[in-house]
Amino acid sequence: MLDAMTYPRAFESAEYDRRVGLVKERAANAGFDLLLCQDPASMGWLTGFDGWSFYTPQAVLVHVDEPAPVWFGRAQDARSAEITTDLPAENIVAFSEPLVHHPEMHPFDELCELIDARGWGSAAIGVELDAHYYTARAHRHLVAGLPHARIEDNRELVNWARLVKSDVELAYMREAGEIVTLVMNTAIARLEPGVPQSEVIADVYHAQITGSGEKFGDYTSLCPLIQVGEGTSTPHLTWTSEPIPDSGLVVMELAAARRHYHTPLTRTMHLGAPSAEVARLAEAIVVSGDAALEAARPGATCEEVEAVWQRSLNRHGYEKASRVGYSIGLNYPPDWGERTASLRPGDLTELEAGMCFHFQSGVWLDDFGAAVSEPFVVTEAGGERLSDVARELIVID
Amino acid sequence: MLDAMTYPRAFESAEYDRRVGLVKERAANAGFDLLLCQDPASMGWLTGFDGWSFYTPQAVLVHVDEPAPVWFGRAQDARSAEITTDLPAENIVAFSEPLVHHPEMHPFDELCELIDARGWGSAAIGVELDAHYYTARAHRHLVAGLPHARIEDNRELVNWARLVKSDVELAYMREAGEIVTLVMNTAIARLEPGVPQSEVIADVYHAQITGSGEKFGDYTSLCPLIQVGEGTSTPHLTWTSEPIPDSGLVVMELAAARRHYHTPLTRTMHLGAPSAEVARLAEAIVVSGDAALEAARPGATCEEVEAVWQRSLNRHGYEKASRVGYSIGLNYPPDWGERTASLRPGDLTELEAGMCFHFQSGVWLDDFGAAVSEPFVVTEAGGERLSDVARELIVID
Repeated sequence: MLDAMTYPRAFESAEYDRRVGLVKERAANAGFDLLLCQDPASMGWLTGFDGWSFYTPQAVLVHVDEPAPVWFGRAQDARSAEITTDLPAENIVAFSEPLVHHPEMHPFDELCELIDARGWGSAAIGVELDAHYYTARAHRHLVAGLPHARIEDNRELVNWARLVKSDVELAYMREAGEIVTLVMNTAIARLEPGVPQSEVIADVYHAQITGSGEKFGDYTSLCPLIQVGEGTSTPHLTWTSEPIPDSGLVVMELAAARRHYHTPLTRTMHLGAPSAEVARLAEAIVVSGDAALEAARPGATCEEVEAVWQRSLNRHGYEKASRVGYSIGLNYPPDWGERTASLRPGDLTELEAGMCFHFQSGVWLDDFGAAVSEPFVVTEAGGERLSDVARELIVID
Repeated sequence: MLDAMTYPRAFESAEYDRRVGLVKERAANAGFDLLLCQDPASMGWLTGFDGWSFYTPQAVLVHVDEPAPVWFGRAQDARSAEITTDLPAENIVAFSEPLVHHPEMHPFDELCELIDARGWGSAAIGVELDAHYYTARAHRHLVAGLPHARIEDNRELVNWARLVKSDVELAYMREAGEIVTLVMNTAIARLEPGVPQSEVIADVYHAQITGSGEKFGDYTSLCPLIQVGEGTSTPHLTWTSEPIPDSGLVVMELAAARRHYHTPLTRTMHLGAPSAEVARLAEAIVVSGDAALEAARPGATCEEVEAVWQRSLNRHGYEKASRVGYSIGLNYPPDWGERTASLRPGDLTELEAGMCFHFQSGVWLDDFGAAVSEPFVVTEAGGERLSDVARELIVID
C-alpha cells in the first residue's frame, strides 16, 4: 500500500478538522442532521479528496454527530480517497461497478442503503441542489431511496463556509497569484501579428502547469480564454489557429491554480495604436476598478463595492449590466467561482478579511469589449491584489 | 457585427440539418414534442454552439415541428451563439442577468416563459435528467414553471443519436488520433528519472494545443492523468511536482481533442527493468486487447467484445471488474465518454460501422496497475485504431 506520507497533502489534518467543525455547526444551525456534498470543491475542502473523478456520482457525507466525514464513490477512486485523505478506512465506501451509467439503477441507490445502514434514514438531509454535478436523476434516486428522510436544498451551505479563507488557504491564493502573473506575462510576450492563437494558448498552458519555482500549478476550472477583434464582444469563446491580426483588440482571461486555489485574471491587449474609443473604455475600467478595490474593506457590503465601480463607470459614460465580481477559492471545473457572494446590486453580504474575489470588470459593447480584472483578498487596507500585471490597456506595437 | 465567415465552423450546415432531422425523428418515436438539451456536447452537436459557458444554465430546444432549434442562455454568451451557429436571430434567446446565482429565482423560470410563449406549455418534454450540468434545482424550476407539460427523462436520446459518426465526424476523430499520437510520444520522451511530473504534464498540454501541422487541438474533457508507482493502483489522481523515480511504473492517460472530438489513450511505462509480474500483466493486456479489437465488427454486441477480452485476460490469470470500454466522440468536460454504449456484460448494443470507442484496458491490482488502451472506430475489418503509439509496456532505461 502507498504510504500516505508520499503524497504531498495540501493541508495538515487540523485544517480539515476546523472546516468539518465549522460545517457541522452551520448544518446544525440550519436544522440538518446530515449534509450530502457532491460538489468536488466541497468534497476536497472538507476532506482533501482529490482526483478527476467528478464525472461519476460520488459524495462526501457530513453528519453533525460524527467526528469524520464519509466518502462514497467508485471503487477505482476509493484508493484516491485513501491516498489523499485521512478518513478512517470504514468511512471510505465504494459502490458496485455495474451501477456506472446503468439505465435503471444508480449509484445513489447504494448511497441510500449506506445512509440507512448508518441509522440516518430518517434524518434531515441537506443536499447541494444546484451543484454542477448533482443531476436531477441523482436527486430522484436519493428521494426515492430514502422515503423517511426530509431532503432539502442546503443552499450552498459548504460554499458559504468556504467564503472566508484561513491563513494557510491565503498562502495558496498568493502562490496562485504569483503563477498567474507569470502566465499572463507569458501570453503578452507571445502576442504578435501572425502567431496562431493556439500557439499562444499552448504556451499559456505550459506556464500554468510549470508554475513558479518549486510551486507547480494545477489544471484551472475554466480553460484559457482568448477573444480577438469583434470576438471580444462575447467572453467565453475559445481559441482557433487563426493568426493574431496586425491590429485590433485581444482579450485574454487566464488563471492559475495552486493546489486547486484559483486566481483568474483578465487583460486587454491592442495590436497597434488603439482608437480613442478603445483607450477611453480601458481607462474607465482601470480607474473604476481601482476605486472599487479601495472600497473593498471589512464591513462594506458587496453591493456597496459594486456601486463605487458603477458610479465611476457611469461618469465615464459606460455601464455594466452583469455583476462585477464573485468569490473565488478552491475549485474544480467547470467554474472557479464559489456561487456565493457576488459584487452586484442587492447582494448584502458584508465583506470580511480573508474573503477573496475576482473583480471581473469586463464591459462588452455591441462590437467589442475590454476587461482589466483583478483577483483580490479583502483586508483592512482594502482589496489586496493577488497578482501583479500592468493595470492598463496593453499596447503591442 | 462579426462576419460569421471569419469564425472557422467545424461543419457545413447540411451536417447540422442531418443531426437535427435524426433527433426530431427519434424524439417523435419516443413520444416527445420537445427536447431540452443542456449537455454542452448535445448543444454543440445539434447547432455548432461553442464556448466555455456550460457552468451557467443554458439549453438547446428541439421541437419536432420546428425547422431550427432554439438556443437559450446568458446574454453575454448569446453573441457566441450568433458567431458559432446558423440559428436564426429569433431563435437565440437570453435570460435576464440578475438570475445568475440568484437564491430564489433561476434562469429556467424564464425558459418556462419562453416555452409557454411558443405555445409548448402542454408539450411532452424530454429532458436530459442525468446530464452533468442538469442540476436537481434546474429541474425543480422547470417542473414548477410548466404545470401543464409532461416532463420526462429522455434517457440520453441525443447521446444515442451521436453514437454512429458521419464521415465528416470521423475525419476529426482521425485528426485527434494523429494529435494524441504526438502527445503520448512527447510524454514518453520526457519521462526520465528526476524530472518533476508537472514538467511532463506542461509539455503534454503544449502538444495537445499545438496539434498536428495546421490542425490545432482543443482542451480535452479530462485533464492529462499521470500515476506513478503505487499511485498506479487508482486511475484519476493528478500530477504533483514529485520527481519521476529511478525505477517503477508510470501510467499516463492522455487525450487529444480536435474540434472537441476526443481520442483518449493510455500507456504504461516502466523506469528500469520491469519485474516479471508487471511484464506479465502488460503482455496479458496487450494480447487480450488485440483479440477484442479483432472482434469489434458490425453486428457484434458490446458484451461479446468484452467477453473476448475477459476470456483472454482470465486465461492469463487476471480479471477486470469494471467495463473495458465506452463510446467516445464530441465532448466537453468533465468526461469524454458519451454515456451510452459500454463494452461490458449485459450491454446488448450491436456495433455499427462508424461507432467509436475507447478500449480502456486498465487493470488495477491492489498495489499497482497497468493499462494499454486504444481509441478505435468500428469497421468491417474490426476495430480500426485511431492512434499509433507502440502497443507494449514501454521500458525507459
